[in-house]
Amino acid sequence: MIDVASKFSSGVKSLRPSEIREILALTENKKVLSLAGGLPGPEVFPKEELAAIASRVIEELGDSALQYSPTLGVMPFREAVADFVRGKGVKVTDNDRVAVTTGSQEAIYLLAMTLINPGDGIIVESPTYLAALNVFRYYGANFISIPLDENGMRTDLLEDSIKKAKEKGINVKMIYTVATCHNPTGVIMSDDRRKELMEIASKYDLLVIEDDPYSFFVFDDDVNFTHLKTMDDEGRVIYLGTFSKILAPGLRLGYMIADRQLVRAVELAKQMVDLHSSTLSQYIALYAIKEGVVDRTIEKARKSYREKRDVMIEALEEYMPDGSHWFRPRGGLFAFIYLPEGVDTSDMLQMAIDRGVAYVPGRSFFSDGSGANAMRINFSYLPPDKLREGIRIIANTAVDYLKAKGKVAS
Amino acid sequence: MIDVASKFSSGVKSLRPSEIREILALTENKKVLSLAGGLPGPEVFPKEELAAIASRVIEELGDSALQYSPTLGVMPFREAVADFVRGKGVKVTDNDRVAVTTGSQEAIYLLAMTLINPGDGIIVESPTYLAALNVFRYYGANFISIPLDENGMRTDLLEDSIKKAKEKGINVKMIYTVATCHNPTGVIMSDDRRKELMEIASKYDLLVIEDDPYSFFVFDDDVNFTHLKTMDDEGRVIYLGTFSKILAPGLRLGYMIADRQLVRAVELAKQMVDLHSSTLSQYIALYAIKEGVVDRTIEKARKSYREKRDVMIEALEEYMPDGSHWFRPRGGLFAFIYLPEGVDTSDMLQMAIDRGVAYVPGRSFFSDGSGANAMRINFSYLPPDKLREGIRIIANTAVDYLKAKGKVAS
Repeated sequence: MIDVASKFSSGVKSLRPSEIREILALTENKKVLSLAGGLPGPEVFPKEELAAIASRVIEELGDSALQYSPTLGVMPFREAVADFVRGKGVKVTDNDRVAVTTGSQEAIYLLAMTLINPGDGIIVESPTYLAALNVFRYYGANFISIPLDENGMRTDLLEDSIKKAKEKGINVKMIYTVATCHNPTGVIMSDDRRKELMEIASKYDLLVIEDDPYSFFVFDDDVNFTHLKTMDDEGRVIYLGTFSKILAPGLRLGYMIADRQLVRAVELAKQMVDLHSSTLSQYIALYAIKEGVVDRTIEKARKSYREKRDVMIEALEEYMPDGSHWFRPRGGLFAFIYLPEGVDTSDMLQMAIDRGVAYVPGRSFFSDGSGANAMRINFSYLPPDKLREGIRIIANTAVDYLKAKGKVAS
Repeated sequence: MIDVASKFSSGVKSLRPSEIREILALTENKKVLSLAGGLPGPEVFPKEELAAIASRVIEELGDSALQYSPTLGVMPFREAVADFVRGKGVKVTDNDRVAVTTGSQEAIYLLAMTLINPGDGIIVESPTYLAALNVFRYYGANFISIPLDENGMRTDLLEDSIKKAKEKGINVKMIYTVATCHNPTGVIMSDDRRKELMEIASKYDLLVIEDDPYSFFVFDDDVNFTHLKTMDDEGRVIYLGTFSKILAPGLRLGYMIADRQLVRAVELAKQMVDLHSSTLSQYIALYAIKEGVVDRTIEKARKSYREKRDVMIEALEEYMPDGSHWFRPRGGLFAFIYLPEGVDTSDMLQMAIDRGVAYVPGRSFFSDGSGANAMRINFSYLPPDKLREGIRIIANTAVDYLKAKGKVAS
């Protein structure tokens, strides 16, 4: 037999498994309460409407919907996406173009491919979305990590960090931010900080990736925010969105709205990667936008997730050992919990899975390996009683873990 | 405004537009007879069946079909794919795994990512599938081009070429072949040559990518062939298939069947690229396999494309200027035509489009820039009368082109 591994490219060595995907695989065939993924609650899927739309799309438009289609997406869908985000307060200029991608994961991948040279400096929140970290790391990024608090990225630390990186000879190229309903913490960047971020981006000539899957799910009524894309007068902001959270992830539809030159480079890259994204999915999503299904799904999901968020916070307060703390998520699908010092959430994961619950260890969300005592939990997927039960098990596991290590927790 | 291009990665410079995709874009809004793409004839799409299946899948399995799913594909679909190809004579071993991809383009991309180091030697047929050339080139491949004739790759030239490449210090890593119903020529590699290819692959420890989108469409009754995957006892052959030609390209579903270690590397790469392929598409294709829709589509397409192939050959014989020649396609979707010396098909393309017809210039199918007087034409997409008309226009354009250049054609 051939030794296949001897044929691998050198890039394979730097392929790191996605912690979320691996945990999903681990728990797939077990009865585990998963708080690990970023899965929508199935109760919000508009099944009946989508069943009818899918059938209608194929009957009415089958010759197009079943056929190959342009790399950047089907034109009426691209136009509908632009109108849709405009309606949500996102500025789309004449110089912008929409690129449809196979989930917003592919948008992140194509951006890394077209923008990052090994060694380039990428500014990220600390913690930040782990799959973006993995892709940027694969392309050789130097991470510049900026802490965050309940008002988002600490932009007061931004300029100093950029200066230090530049002194080290790093070509600081862009800022990647989940400014609204941040993954993994659920905080929302204040408009003051957004302004500061944009000023610094302009001063240091940086691109800004505004990764925005969650801004439809703001739970608190007193929140006002302006999209970075809307504040941008210089074509710096690359806006990423997805239908995974507002319609159905199984369609694999994300999108990027950015400067036409960049979108042209992304088009050439996407020609190589997968030619184009599912034509059928695009037409289904197009009909779903036009017929109000997307807007109704957003409303339904926001209500459902807000209730679940409240159940989660109640359970966290009731069960978590003293010394734990967390950001109160103002929106989104996730909470980021710090357990008492001494807990190593990576080490504890197998114990938790054996007891019937999964989460994502915190370390994966930091570029520098910190976050050992943290974890991300998702509150959108499970029904409220299971969510509560999952948190109770995690809390008990942490207490027992600390005892076993000879440490005391309340 | 920002100068976005100044931010591009150095890789962007080596992104070459896909000629096919660019021609499709050029002709999108014009009334042009396109013989350029590899599009199925819309008459073979099982629209009614797929409309019913899509609706049933969402109603019956919505919670799964609309949700995120594993990176390598939904398990029942992966199993159905393995059974399906086994039923078509492709050997699948216990050591093999199925990876579902976003079209077989993504399979090619993920293989390049996981296998090719800059400078590695990749053996290809000359001519060969242009999108594979583009991807391999992007990853820095050194091409070793082997001519073909009506019995496929000239395997008698293989060993010498490998030796020469090795003398130059090239790490010869794999053979990429469309052995059955070759793209762009439609020839089928004889079993003798397949055996020779496999012996040489074994002797020189090469991987073999058997790219097999077209083997369901063999038109001539006297053809027998054995898949390279079936001849393989050493785990060298990576088998690629697609539902684009046997069900619907709009679903974006391809697959790879290969050694489990390689598929694991591909899984990690795919986690970064797009997480997974459309769950909905996978369930639709699963039902379509189980309910015989795929097999019926194959039969319908084979009949339709055989008729069109015959119409095309008749038209080529009737219209093409003296000095033209071509392989008679024994299967597949394409013919590769050599026009008289003096025609530059790249140069002639705009003239042809202005007269209402598009094709793909031959140069794109060669790694060394030869093929200036060749072109690929597709015969599966257009109805027979339009196909005939398209060929008549191409022939007239070639005659006028030669006249304009001061050369004579009959």
